[in-house]
Amino acid sequence: MNTGPLRVGLIGLGTVGSGVAHILIEQPERMTRRAGRPLHIARVAVRSPDKPRSITLPDAVVSDDVRQIIEDDSIDVAVQLIGGTDPAGEIMQALLRSGKDVVTANKALLCEHGTELFQLARENGRCIAFEAAVAGGIPIVAALGQSMAANQITSIEAILNGTSNFILTEMLAGGRSYEDVLAEAQKRGYAEADPSMDVDGTDAAQKLVILVRLAFGKRVSLHEFALSGIDMIELADLRYADELGYAVKLLAVAKLVDRQLEMHVQPTLLRRDRPIARTDGAFNIIALEGDAVGTAWFSGPGAGQLPTASAVVADLIDVATGRAARTFSHLDVWRPDSACALQLAEQISRRYYLRFKVEDRPHVLADIADILGRNEISIASVIQHEAPEHDEAASGRRPVVPLVIMTHLTTEGRMRAADRELAGLSSLQPKRVRMPVAD
Amino acid sequence: MNTGPLRVGLIGLGTVGSGVAHILIEQPERMTRRAGRPLHIARVAVRSPDKPRSITLPDAVVSDDVRQIIEDDSIDVAVQLIGGTDPAGEIMQALLRSGKDVVTANKALLCEHGTELFQLARENGRCIAFEAAVAGGIPIVAALGQSMAANQITSIEAILNGTSNFILTEMLAGGRSYEDVLAEAQKRGYAEADPSMDVDGTDAAQKLVILVRLAFGKRVSLHEFALSGIDMIELADLRYADELGYAVKLLAVAKLVDRQLEMHVQPTLLRRDRPIARTDGAFNIIALEGDAVGTAWFSGPGAGQLPTASAVVADLIDVATGRAARTFSHLDVWRPDSACALQLAEQISRRYYLRFKVEDRPHVLADIADILGRNEISIASVIQHEAPEHDEAASGRRPVVPLVIMTHLTTEGRMRAADRELAGLSSLQPKRVRMPVAD
Repeated sequence: MNTGPLRVGLIGLGTVGSGVAHILIEQPERMTRRAGRPLHIARVAVRSPDKPRSITLPDAVVSDDVRQIIEDDSIDVAVQLIGGTDPAGEIMQALLRSGKDVVTANKALLCEHGTELFQLARENGRCIAFEAAVAGGIPIVAALGQSMAANQITSIEAILNGTSNFILTEMLAGGRSYEDVLAEAQKRGYAEADPSMDVDGTDAAQKLVILVRLAFGKRVSLHEFALSGIDMIELADLRYADELGYAVKLLAVAKLVDRQLEMHVQPTLLRRDRPIARTDGAFNIIALEGDAVGTAWFSGPGAGQLPTASAVVADLIDVATGRAARTFSHLDVWRPDSACALQLAEQISRRYYLRFKVEDRPHVLADIADILGRNEISIASVIQHEAPEHDEAASGRRPVVPLVIMTHLTTEGRMRAADRELAGLSSLQPKRVRMPVAD
Repeated sequence: MNTGPLRVGLIGLGTVGSGVAHILIEQPERMTRRAGRPLHIARVAVRSPDKPRSITLPDAVVSDDVRQIIEDDSIDVAVQLIGGTDPAGEIMQALLRSGKDVVTANKALLCEHGTELFQLARENGRCIAFEAAVAGGIPIVAALGQSMAANQITSIEAILNGTSNFILTEMLAGGRSYEDVLAEAQKRGYAEADPSMDVDGTDAAQKLVILVRLAFGKRVSLHEFALSGIDMIELADLRYADELGYAVKLLAVAKLVDRQLEMHVQPTLLRRDRPIARTDGAFNIIALEGDAVGTAWFSGPGAGQLPTASAVVADLIDVATGRAARTFSHLDVWRPDSACALQLAEQISRRYYLRFKVEDRPHVLADIADILGRNEISIASVIQHEAPEHDEAASGRRPVVPLVIMTHLTTEGRMRAADRELAGLSSLQPKRVRMPVAD
């Protein structure tokens, strides 16, 4: 067994990179004990070497040239912590070709180019370790790649974006608007300066794509499944859901239904007694169902400097001990892609929460119920509170009231057909809200 | 890399053993893909080879002689699924000496003789994999041994016995007595025919000892920390706790406090909004706190045939790939035992729930408050409901009413001193209830 130092090249010294450097520099004895050999930061590549940082590194180690890491044959493993796909993809290719293992937290890159990168690593006898790419400090990649290896995973349901979950939690708890809470999240550092990938569901969807590749051996692209974010959610919907006994979560789902894979990332109503519904604030949670284990839940901080660095360093230790190479060579990402087909969106069967703004006049509910009924959608419950006092003569308009309907089980196809007819009802205001329900 | 079959000797074909055999026999293709080589049941040793079983194995494979596994040099790994310490300990020693890796679910054996067995395995260049020994299908051993390796674990709080948790949940939900629910649990197979190790806390404590060895490198024996079970719990206490906003759980705790290890397994009040408090029924949950990751929660089925078999088979796959050997050689069980001292029981600082049965007469509350006060224990809240109608003249006795007190933070030492004084109060009935509170 190799007991010499593992020579690490660190690419990127932002939030997570500084956290990794901090752990390696502050805890050398712990690292050596757990990895069986020292973890040595041999080189660091950053965009601005002269920027002041909280970490003190020897001057000779830091450069602005990533080639100094790529071309240094004494480096065993690169920790690649730059985001996005370009130039991150080319850098990772060069690292693998130059014979280095790679540890990364880059979910966008693995989501988009994972298959080719995994293949390239395999061809070069290298491994890619990516625990930190999904759900930060929660060891869900290890769970899927190792601990649940006896199982066929049958279902993944998860909250994979802490920013969205923080916003939804604070909106309901504080009776505040989406915009108001988002601004606070940015101020407190929970949300990026540009939070669009968080709140539009892209970030969660990228993570789900990686989990699906691991759990089902299935390659899926972002445009192949239903994806929506929380940016259209209004406080009113969170309150109606609460009144009905549900929480609204940005839920990522991938599950086997009749040997096909149902997959989507959408704001979803969950019964409030479920562990996922109770996961509030900036936390992530993943519920895994396997044919042997039943259901297991993993939750914790899905982002942040030290939680994510914790996952990166665990991967480094796995590389140092030789475990990572063994895990990587047996991952289900190598399974032929024919494993299972994606279920067609139209065929996905769920219950729905519908909210309309309707004119307060006779027959409106009957019109809606008629459209739903003709599309074979049956109504489970209705909330319509009394309209506030409204002086119709003075305003010249009829009062508008909210109407909330929970349906029984139906298909997305029927729901879309009904939607098209509902769009033609003159008594409805244009904005209609529709969210699936995960019972 | 070895691609020949991993030859498995299976010792014990009870509930879990049958589950393991079932997975290996029913899913050979899955096993080969994930282990990189076939997992082949070469020999099985059982007490009664002729007993009818749900698993069909070739006659030549099954014997009642464990020596046929020990002495068979073609066997790579033994799955040892017999309980207790004797003869399990001698068998495991013989297996390790004969050059076999061992996968086991035997928590009692590892709790009592783990250190010597781990050492023996090391001397023989073998490994012991024991994911199934703690919390069944929840991969907590992998979390501590690998995924959290960047961290110093600072706290473990857990529900580690599903039977106890099922009983506590059902008592409160159904308003039923301990004895009543225990009888049902035995009928439904949640509780063993002899459930004493479950309900007296021993089972949870054995698991905690193993987790403490992994997380803190500390060897502890069962008699060194406070250990009590749920067998003295009355429905009334669950109801008072509920009224105060708490759930009662059989909580296993090990945490660093001032560089010492606070450790105990006791029925404990937890605020109802905490994830552990919300874990009901036969499930287990473990909250791990690390200095990098913060807090992560792992929950799921802590026992049962297939969940436990899922963990055993994951360990077999780890042995087959060579990961298990690498993990084992770096576990913190090898740390010098001087790492941290156990905190003295008397110094442990907590809040307490106290329930008394008091005579309904003047000055009783004052007497109790005086004793607590003189021991520097301050009272946070009191519940005393009005006494039911009681005809004192007719019965010749004063009415007896329950009195519940929640204290502020104090030490176990002060609490014990107060206890001794309270025992002398003639206005108190002999049975007093005292449970710690984990805020």
